[in-house]
Amino acid sequence: MLEVSKLIQGEKRTAAKIITLIENNGVGKQELLSEIYPHTGGAHVIGVTGSPGAGKSSLTDVLIKMARAENRKVGVIAVDPTSPISGGALLGDRIRMQEHALDQNVFIRSMGTRGSLGGLARATRDVVKVLDAYGCEVIIIETVGVGQSELDIMHHADTTLVVLTPGTGDHIQTIKAGIMEIANIFVINKADLGNTKKMITDIEQMLDMSPRYTGCWRPPVVPTSVVNDTGLDELWALVKRHLEHTRQSGEMLESVRKRLGTEVVELAEEELRRMLWEQFGNNGNMGTLLDKLARREADPYKEASRLVLRFLHQNQNERGIENDTGQTG
Amino acid sequence: MLEVSKLIQGEKRTAAKIITLIENNGVGKQELLSEIYPHTGGAHVIGVTGSPGAGKSSLTDVLIKMARAENRKVGVIAVDPTSPISGGALLGDRIRMQEHALDQNVFIRSMGTRGSLGGLARATRDVVKVLDAYGCEVIIIETVGVGQSELDIMHHADTTLVVLTPGTGDHIQTIKAGIMEIANIFVINKADLGNTKKMITDIEQMLDMSPRYTGCWRPPVVPTSVVNDTGLDELWALVKRHLEHTRQSGEMLESVRKRLGTEVVELAEEELRRMLWEQFGNNGNMGTLLDKLARREADPYKEASRLVLRFLHQNQNERGIENDTGQTG
Repeated sequence: MLEVSKLIQGEKRTAAKIITLIENNGVGKQELLSEIYPHTGGAHVIGVTGSPGAGKSSLTDVLIKMARAENRKVGVIAVDPTSPISGGALLGDRIRMQEHALDQNVFIRSMGTRGSLGGLARATRDVVKVLDAYGCEVIIIETVGVGQSELDIMHHADTTLVVLTPGTGDHIQTIKAGIMEIANIFVINKADLGNTKKMITDIEQMLDMSPRYTGCWRPPVVPTSVVNDTGLDELWALVKRHLEHTRQSGEMLESVRKRLGTEVVELAEEELRRMLWEQFGNNGNMGTLLDKLARREADPYKEASRLVLRFLHQNQNERGIENDTGQTG
Repeated sequence: MLEVSKLIQGEKRTAAKIITLIENNGVGKQELLSEIYPHTGGAHVIGVTGSPGAGKSSLTDVLIKMARAENRKVGVIAVDPTSPISGGALLGDRIRMQEHALDQNVFIRSMGTRGSLGGLARATRDVVKVLDAYGCEVIIIETVGVGQSELDIMHHADTTLVVLTPGTGDHIQTIKAGIMEIANIFVINKADLGNTKKMITDIEQMLDMSPRYTGCWRPPVVPTSVVNDTGLDELWALVKRHLEHTRQSGEMLESVRKRLGTEVVELAEEELRRMLWEQFGNNGNMGTLLDKLARREADPYKEASRLVLRFLHQNQNERGIENDTGQTG
């Protein structure tokens, strides 16, 4: 059994082992997360997303340095939905991050997909909790691209940076991908490479047209250049100001509540799915029905609805008894 | 309402429209598929998978020509799990297939992922049914690569070709990916480019070591060259022989039964999921629980188990009444 107490004390190896167990959907995962949960809630989760080549890794590197300069413990989750690589493997462009590898207060983890994109977002959510309980005050989630799965992953961030490059038409792509809605801060990175004014104007105009920013946080647009070291202090200040704003305005509590509600339903969904497959997954209990289906004398759609009824009936009885005696779980 | 009768009569536009509706998870999808189902079961579904660059598209092209030479109606589903492109869009390397575009008896469709890999395999399964009812006697499912999602997609094929290129170490990769198990025929394509003997020997040795081929179909290994037109007739004959074998040996019925069993449970899973989210998805019914979760006085894992009980209880009652009065669905 992996010891949660060691995780809380900040033992790096325990953190790594627990994350591996979560990624592999190992035995005792739920119990472990259940034990970890009370120790979470202390971290500021920062999401970094944007089109490939926008310099997200360099910016993540900057954010690590900024947090470390304030002596805060940092966790980084680099998520690549297009890659099957997980675990200790470092992505190619994060070699620069290796300079942090010897820093006991920086924990970097790469995650790739294993067949299920939805599973990746959920695994990210769980890894955030582990790093939170491990004592990370800042947790950065960085994704490689801006697809649907990246949007799902960003739901687990408190503050989301959308990174764009000037003169690339990036912002047009961005609107299409529905990413405007998740941005808390727009970063126009590589500002040294192009004309940022047009892009800033375009984004500001889009924000003007959206009524949802009146009276609350309106995403600022910050030009940055990692090469010339411009805009970086401002960006870091904005990241912290956003956290402060969401805490004071109650938006933080609201989004935490919303996330938790979704999480509970997702977990219930997983449990129902597991029960269903355990009870009916191996074609047990289906006997002659399969022959009728094969002969086209029945159809899978109507039979699925019948199966739902059977499942509900069957588990109501058994579960009801369990519930009465208090022997749940 | 899209008319299934027109689909059965072989109206191409109706087929295309129904497929689009399925891809978009449109209203009435289940009812439509339920109506289509009795008209399925006539097609031979051929899966073509293998590493990128192995010449799968050229081979698919050959298979189309072979089937057309026998005056059989052909459907092609080109699946790219890495691409968000769906619908009418043709993949880059299938421009050659455009020569079939004017042939009324060839129906080609590209499918890409939309956030969910599992969803792609299920959509492929449904599109196969539509093409089957539409009158295609041969349906070819071609995938771009050999990842987990491709393996899932290949479960819907009756005969699966695994395409390799000689001298590339492809077969080693193949074993790793667990693809050996799904191959019914190994095709060493581009045989003109390299030494096929070593590869054939390696594959045969692997097959020798596996006890599961005794007394039933042992996957043959066929070298082919589209450029030199060698091995292609043999391949086509093997494809047809495999179908004959599975039909006579009863393997076909067994795998059809197995697939249908899985399908019914998957559909039931979808229905349960939909019910769960409709009833609890918008944080309705969760009231103060979310506050307790936010304060870490409760944990999402235990609450999810409680939610499962509530869900089962709630729906047992309602569903039970529906069931009694016969008003299901």
